[in-house]
Amino acid sequence: MLTDLETLKVRTDRNVLYVRIDAPPINMLGPELVRDLVTLMGELEGTTDIAVVVFESGNPDFFISHVDVTKVAEYRKEAARLTGETSIGLLFRRLSEAKYVTIAQVEGRARGAGSEFALACDMRFAAIETATFAQFESSFGLSPGAGGIQHLVRQLGRGRALEVLLSANDFSALEAQQYGWINRALPHEELHPFVETLADRIASFPHGGLQAIKQRVNAVALAAVDDFRIDSDLFGSAVADPEVRRRMKLALERGFQTREPELDLPGLVGGLAY
Amino acid sequence: MLTDLETLKVRTDRNVLYVRIDAPPINMLGPELVRDLVTLMGELEGTTDIAVVVFESGNPDFFISHVDVTKVAEYRKEAARLTGETSIGLLFRRLSEAKYVTIAQVEGRARGAGSEFALACDMRFAAIETATFAQFESSFGLSPGAGGIQHLVRQLGRGRALEVLLSANDFSALEAQQYGWINRALPHEELHPFVETLADRIASFPHGGLQAIKQRVNAVALAAVDDFRIDSDLFGSAVADPEVRRRMKLALERGFQTREPELDLPGLVGGLAY
Amino acid sequence: MLTDLETLKVRTDRNVLYVRIDAPPINMLGPELVRDLVTLMGELEGTTDIAVVVFESGNPDFFISHVDVTKVAEYRKEAARLTGETSIGLLFRRLSEAKYVTIAQVEGRARGAGSEFALACDMRFAAIETATFAQFESSFGLSPGAGGIQHLVRQLGRGRALEVLLSANDFSALEAQQYGWINRALPHEELHPFVETLADRIASFPHGGLQAIKQRVNAVALAAVDDFRIDSDLFGSAVADPEVRRRMKLALERGFQTREPELDLPGLVGGLAY
Repeated sequence: MLTDLETLKVRTDRNVLYVRIDAPPINMLGPELVRDLVTLMGELEGTTDIAVVVFESGNPDFFISHVDVTKVAEYRKEAARLTGETSIGLLFRRLSEAKYVTIAQVEGRARGAGSEFALACDMRFAAIETATFAQFESSFGLSPGAGGIQHLVRQLGRGRALEVLLSANDFSALEAQQYGWINRALPHEELHPFVETLADRIASFPHGGLQAIKQRVNAVALAAVDDFRIDSDLFGSAVADPEVRRRMKLALERGFQTREPELDLPGLVGGLAY
Repeated sequence: MLTDLETLKVRTDRNVLYVRIDAPPINMLGPELVRDLVTLMGELEGTTDIAVVVFESGNPDFFISHVDVTKVAEYRKEAARLTGETSIGLLFRRLSEAKYVTIAQVEGRARGAGSEFALACDMRFAAIETATFAQFESSFGLSPGAGGIQHLVRQLGRGRALEVLLSANDFSALEAQQYGWINRALPHEELHPFVETLADRIASFPHGGLQAIKQRVNAVALAAVDDFRIDSDLFGSAVADPEVRRRMKLALERGFQTREPELDLPGLVGGLAY
Repeated sequence: MLTDLETLKVRTDRNVLYVRIDAPPINMLGPELVRDLVTLMGELEGTTDIAVVVFESGNPDFFISHVDVTKVAEYRKEAARLTGETSIGLLFRRLSEAKYVTIAQVEGRARGAGSEFALACDMRFAAIETATFAQFESSFGLSPGAGGIQHLVRQLGRGRALEVLLSANDFSALEAQQYGWINRALPHEELHPFVETLADRIASFPHGGLQAIKQRVNAVALAAVDDFRIDSDLFGSAVADPEVRRRMKLALERGFQTREPELDLPGLVGGLAY
């Protein structure tokens, strides 16, 4: 039933669905990728065949880079097709509540909303050699709007969450593992077999039990809709701030949202004061 | 005053009580062990002589294996003698609220309710070489009913708690330490002296201060009675589910609840789909 | 505008303020240091020039040793000048809510209220070779009154927070890192450049975004005023307890609050039962 979408290539192995994110050149979360995520999530809500969904990247350098800051209104509008609200945070929160189990298999950079997408999944495993995590919104004068604050503060604690959120720095897979941002960092060659074995194992268990466990965990650890909405609204209103717009414009002039400069994004966004 | 019980052997050293769990062949939490725990907890509630209680195992391979799934009604009935409710989760929660300090000194396997018992203690120290932790309820289609969900999600965070709870896998002492499931993993030969020194030290401090600290920590970190009760009820009703019963029957046929097959339980419970 | 105070030496580098704690002989939190903290915090609340404040120590052996137990009423009275309440916990909580970002750069011992001050900062980085952390209140029969319980239980989880709070033991920088007490432990020679680079980076970002992030994180992770107040009142009333006073008197006779004995405080406070 599930078929490839423009930016999401799917493969089903028994009741595990592998979803490869493929939005060249840097897997940016723009209108197309949000549209396809909405389509996929809608289809998955209509089926009971899939027990586990693994998200992986078709780009060795980028898992999901971040949102397309030139198309905020457009990608938000796509999100509303599923949730009724123009908010990526609420879309991601809906993913966290899905009856299927989700695993982010991270290779390459997962920054901004890319990190927040991984955080919305039930588990995160990352390649030691290539995976990188960042919430760099502070460098523009923004606060993360897609749920990252809610997940990070609960998983990392106040001090480490503030370091991540305020510094706009890259964190390696090993650092992310130490801070509790991800479940585990694994050598690249072990990552795929580890995730596949885990996904197959979980998918072989009765789905009612899996769903009961997710519900009980979410009842404690998944922040309320209002918390996500406030963060989303803060981001949405702050993007109109003049200094935020000046920094975005300058960053775009210096190559933000293009491949080479994005490889070392912390360097680029660290120099926007002047 | 405190004397040996059938499955709990006690030794008092000044105001520290050492309780050795001794329920052959695999320290299963059945009616006898629950009965003796209830007796011990009742006696301890009536005395002020004991400041610290250390739980250890008389079996090098098993700390507490898990509940006896063939005697759910019976062991639950024993728990009600102390709390008035047929719930292991509420019994364990009462242990977490005890005025005495509790330490789990874990050697061997602590799975299911065995892990949940350790989690109910105030601290957990485990032998690197032998200690193993698991919540394998999901493999039967169950969710943990004795408080494990509440403790794990608060101590490990959403992602790692879900991995533990959904995967039904064994975690080594070092992995459990990294995830925050236990306080520390120690080499086997250092474990006993470490715990004894710690227990003696704490027991030498004024008890009023220790109790004030426990109360203030529990006010934040110990989930409400209702949260424990919901988890307990979920487990209690799900054990009657046909697929759960089919898996339990198959597991018992394959050696579940006997010594040799229990040594590698994740392998056994990973193959119950067919 | 900001000038040196008796126990706090300040240095401004662009919009980063470095505050060196200098209260010989052991950087004890007595009336003078609290008075100067209150003055500094008051001045900082009246300016928007400073984005980041780094707290460091002028004493290689002590960051902040702990409160002066012989002057509880006096130092508490100083705190009330800013907050209206005679509570160090509420003073520290106000620091956590500051619009500027705070970093504790810890070298030497940070015990009792010294640890609690570091916990009140937004981030904590410590020197592997010299930094030491402890909450040793339990050894006197007290519970920490300056917010340590609230921060530790949320950052470390129930089990590790109880170990820290009940044991009154020293924890090395590496242990504190593993438990999540601090952000990171760094080799001494890397600590200053790391903190300076981080402070400069954060200070170059728009302040509105930094403040929004702090507010959203504090909304989840900073305990309510009442929680701090209860802990503070518990400490305040327990200091009058006869056994607490006996232990304090004995400790003072054995060198508590003097330099040499304070180097190994866990040894000293572990022997107060007799």
